[in-house]
Amino acid sequence: MIKAIEWVDGKVRILDQTKLPLKEDYLEFTNPHQVAEAIKSMKVRGAPALGVAAAFGIALGAKNSTAKTSDQFIDEIKRVCEEMSQTRPTAANLFWAIQRMKRLVHKSKNLCVEDLKKVLYEEAMEIAREDEEANRRLGALGAALIEDGDNILTHCNTGTLATGGYGTALGVIRAAWNQGKKIHVYVDETRPLLQGSRLTCWELMKEKIPATLITDNMAGFLMSMGEISKVIVGADRIAANGDVANKIGTYTLAVLAKENNVPFYIAAPTPTIDFNIPSGKQIPIEERNPREVTHIFGQQIAPSGISIANPAFDITPHELIEAIITEKGIVRPPFEINLEKLVRE
Amino acid sequence: MIKAIEWVDGKVRILDQTKLPLKEDYLEFTNPHQVAEAIKSMKVRGAPALGVAAAFGIALGAKNSTAKTSDQFIDEIKRVCEEMSQTRPTAANLFWAIQRMKRLVHKSKNLCVEDLKKVLYEEAMEIAREDEEANRRLGALGAALIEDGDNILTHCNTGTLATGGYGTALGVIRAAWNQGKKIHVYVDETRPLLQGSRLTCWELMKEKIPATLITDNMAGFLMSMGEISKVIVGADRIAANGDVANKIGTYTLAVLAKENNVPFYIAAPTPTIDFNIPSGKQIPIEERNPREVTHIFGQQIAPSGISIANPAFDITPHELIEAIITEKGIVRPPFEINLEKLVRE
Repeated sequence: MIKAIEWVDGKVRILDQTKLPLKEDYLEFTNPHQVAEAIKSMKVRGAPALGVAAAFGIALGAKNSTAKTSDQFIDEIKRVCEEMSQTRPTAANLFWAIQRMKRLVHKSKNLCVEDLKKVLYEEAMEIAREDEEANRRLGALGAALIEDGDNILTHCNTGTLATGGYGTALGVIRAAWNQGKKIHVYVDETRPLLQGSRLTCWELMKEKIPATLITDNMAGFLMSMGEISKVIVGADRIAANGDVANKIGTYTLAVLAKENNVPFYIAAPTPTIDFNIPSGKQIPIEERNPREVTHIFGQQIAPSGISIANPAFDITPHELIEAIITEKGIVRPPFEINLEKLVRE
Repeated sequence: MIKAIEWVDGKVRILDQTKLPLKEDYLEFTNPHQVAEAIKSMKVRGAPALGVAAAFGIALGAKNSTAKTSDQFIDEIKRVCEEMSQTRPTAANLFWAIQRMKRLVHKSKNLCVEDLKKVLYEEAMEIAREDEEANRRLGALGAALIEDGDNILTHCNTGTLATGGYGTALGVIRAAWNQGKKIHVYVDETRPLLQGSRLTCWELMKEKIPATLITDNMAGFLMSMGEISKVIVGADRIAANGDVANKIGTYTLAVLAKENNVPFYIAAPTPTIDFNIPSGKQIPIEERNPREVTHIFGQQIAPSGISIANPAFDITPHELIEAIITEKGIVRPPFEINLEKLVRE
């Protein structure tokens, strides 16, 4: 399987997702600044993949350190963590992975520099491994919700490219397909960055899963015609009450699904849940560069000088969500209670 | 004011809307086949403008005729009408204008060829003139619904470029602005053909009306944040019960507006109403070339070989519509009764 991000021979190798599907360009990074830049410019994206990328960036910082003492080393790692946390504001997994690396450094502060480097490297590898495993487990659990003949709508990209491997919403679809279920996928192109058309279609074609690409504004019409039986999307952050921040357009799909009695599912590993955030209202929404709206692959598509809004995410209130599929189980309302139960068990 | 379509010195002059906003290319047509091709390829588009284009195409056919007898001439005109009616299936105004030209020919069958040419030419000019007048009237009526501070969301292009002049939904916005109302417009880019970003932004900037461009999937989020106070869009065909066929994505906006208690208005001249069609279910929905989805200005944005759906329109059920703004008055529910009343008066 293709990997969005991998640790290869002491370097971080990523598939440049801004070039897909026209080019499969791999980039190799030797320092954390390069990783931070790749996150900001969305060469690597997707909440779970961002967790892995942040951990790998910190591991690169550790590897490159010339600190003589553990204290110096720990200060350096804290600065790298700070740099990683300044890349993108919404994805919970990014902050979760940084927190985990920080906590480990703190816990290991009595180790020598060489041993600190080793434990940070191992933790980063573990974060990547765990994410792929969580994806496979939530895929298998979620596949039980899928039936023969389902027409599943998905948004953005939640596949191998968005994760440590396998995928979340696309992992559920992949698992159902591998179980022999006869399904068909509708893919929202997902403007402005077209992760649906560029990335999800590319992944589905590689797996030969039947798929039809649509523009974002067609999903409602297809639902009104009875053409869509389920909606499954990923999440960038899930608040304690079950409100979900996800790629812009997700809220619209949830409202359309409710209007047309189509079940609307979220698929995400538990590190996407942020219990420090009581509701969606407190989740910071990233506003990105206007050029993402006015230009496509460098081609200008709007008049020069027009004002632009470009929120990268929106908030779907928990009332619109049928269930949240995680690696620890499928959570149903009341989410406030059942999400906490899930991670406590 | 810029004209999407004009009769100039015995030729039909159109502004090629596929090139906007990057180029202002005018094309001159001397025969109806060129007009039919321009309609199919959407060099000219927008339901009211298509009515004018069809009438002008028929007038060109009349002008070019070398028929010796009125019978020959009438047969020729019928063939031109047939060609015009095969261009695009959804816009009511196109068929309405063809019908009107046909009826006139029938009524005038005792005239000589020269006189027939003259009456057809005059009728086509009258259709264009009436459309602009209807737009101005519905704009003035609709402007009464707009208040200072309104943030108005619109979809596709319903301005000068979509009509004989002035615009429908954009005519309402233009009239409110010209009355000095302090408004701001959110413009859906309107994939796949980007009539919002390419055409509506271009028109609004020319008039200096404050506007912000968004991708189609951002409208829901903005509504959920209380950023949008009204939605006004045009129509390609209105069924007798008030169901509306309009550019793909319109239905989605109507559902989002209902969920967020935002009034949703349709603006269209009365020739857009098709009393022969009882409900939206019977309106034919045009499926267009997949390349509109996979390519933007020639740039490929999806993997080769992916399946595509590309319905150009959707149906908004009348229950989601607050009012229909026409040149004869603002129609409110029950539409089935009030639309008929409107045209009978």
